[in-house]
Amino acid sequence: MLHPIAENLSKINLFKNLTIEKLESIIKSKNSEIKDYKKKEIIFFRGQKFEYLLVLIFGEVITEMNDFNGKVVQVERIKAPSLLAPGFLFNSKNCSPVDILADSRVTILKLEKSYILQLCKDNDEFLENFLKIVSNKLTFLSEKLYLNSLKTIKEKIIFYLISLYNSQNKANEIILPISLEELSHLFGVARPSLSREFINLEKEGLIMKNNNKIKILNKEELLLNKE
Amino acid sequence: MLHPIAENLSKINLFKNLTIEKLESIIKSKNSEIKDYKKKEIIFFRGQKFEYLLVLIFGEVITEMNDFNGKVVQVERIKAPSLLAPGFLFNSKNCSPVDILADSRVTILKLEKSYILQLCKDNDEFLENFLKIVSNKLTFLSEKLYLNSLKTIKEKIIFYLISLYNSQNKANEIILPISLEELSHLFGVARPSLSREFINLEKEGLIMKNNNKIKILNKEELLLNKE
Repeated sequence: MLHPIAENLSKINLFKNLTIEKLESIIKSKNSEIKDYKKKEIIFFRGQKFEYLLVLIFGEVITEMNDFNGKVVQVERIKAPSLLAPGFLFNSKNCSPVDILADSRVTILKLEKSYILQLCKDNDEFLENFLKIVSNKLTFLSEKLYLNSLKTIKEKIIFYLISLYNSQNKANEIILPISLEELSHLFGVARPSLSREFINLEKEGLIMKNNNKIKILNKEELLLNKE
Repeated sequence: MLHPIAENLSKINLFKNLTIEKLESIIKSKNSEIKDYKKKEIIFFRGQKFEYLLVLIFGEVITEMNDFNGKVVQVERIKAPSLLAPGFLFNSKNCSPVDILADSRVTILKLEKSYILQLCKDNDEFLENFLKIVSNKLTFLSEKLYLNSLKTIKEKIIFYLISLYNSQNKANEIILPISLEELSHLFGVARPSLSREFINLEKEGLIMKNNNKIKILNKEELLLNKE
């Protein structure tokens, strides 16, 4: 029977397609460590050096930073199983921009940085998975940065649909590759406001939305409708 | 004597510390290709699939995207020697978010994606360099995204100085790790406005700036001065 830690590890993209033996050897390696935290305990301080890749096996964490007045701003809530801040592990500053706090009982698998490099070299899938994860985060942030410069939710939706249209072979039926929930994070807007705006675009006869399928009814008019 | 292409390749962080023999073998590999472009020629279309890592060996390029009205927005000007969009090479969409145009006579070294993976596996330095480059870009964008949410240049400078203060062992003298030019890109503001704001902060007696060294004269007051 699969060990519950190995089972949750296998659900994370980075470890996808690794054999059960490999997963178990990672967990038992002398370069890895399993650590439990209580609710409210700090797992990682901002500015602390990254020596390990942190893998959230069980529980929930929140990442926080302080604004000028010391007021805490919650950045993100992350549920297991998931990697924690994998994109920052190899940066030159080598430190976390946020605090990571346990928001329930939490189990973390800590993998030494040098061990991650070793896994990349020994294992094609692992290397490609890691590069894909970091690259996807970069693409997400870069889109988010551009979307931030657009003022209305309508503008954001139209920009997003047009870029999907361009990348999906310019077919009039577009597939949303992420959920509305994820899209609202990308846009930095509330989920209900996003749904409302999709309904407005339908009412105006510009698009037709059916779950994750969106039909562009009038591309020229859509492009003019940015306000 | 070092081949001029190998010489420029050696100046790029990704290829740092590789032997001359290694650099020459990369250039001559059957997995790489050298291509010249004239000024105004398109090197890469938005939405085109990434099959290669593009290395700018000679010349200058600009990256562009269109806004809603088809108006061209210049995103970045990149001078040789430099990698082009390395962070997007392994994303799931596997395509470029921008057009890349030659802005002079340009020489590009194209390295097949599978060859990059091979180089990562064969060469510790190359793997670490590649991860560091992508990770640094991610850190840059993530800071930029936060800085964007701050309204005034003064707020941006103070936030930036305080995060340097925290990451540089809380010493009162901070070292700016990037030039004012790069800092103005990070903030998304004009270089002269940035300099003016630094002078204002000096006049107010909050900091003292000497080239890349900044002394925080009054941290408590600095934190209060966000407007």
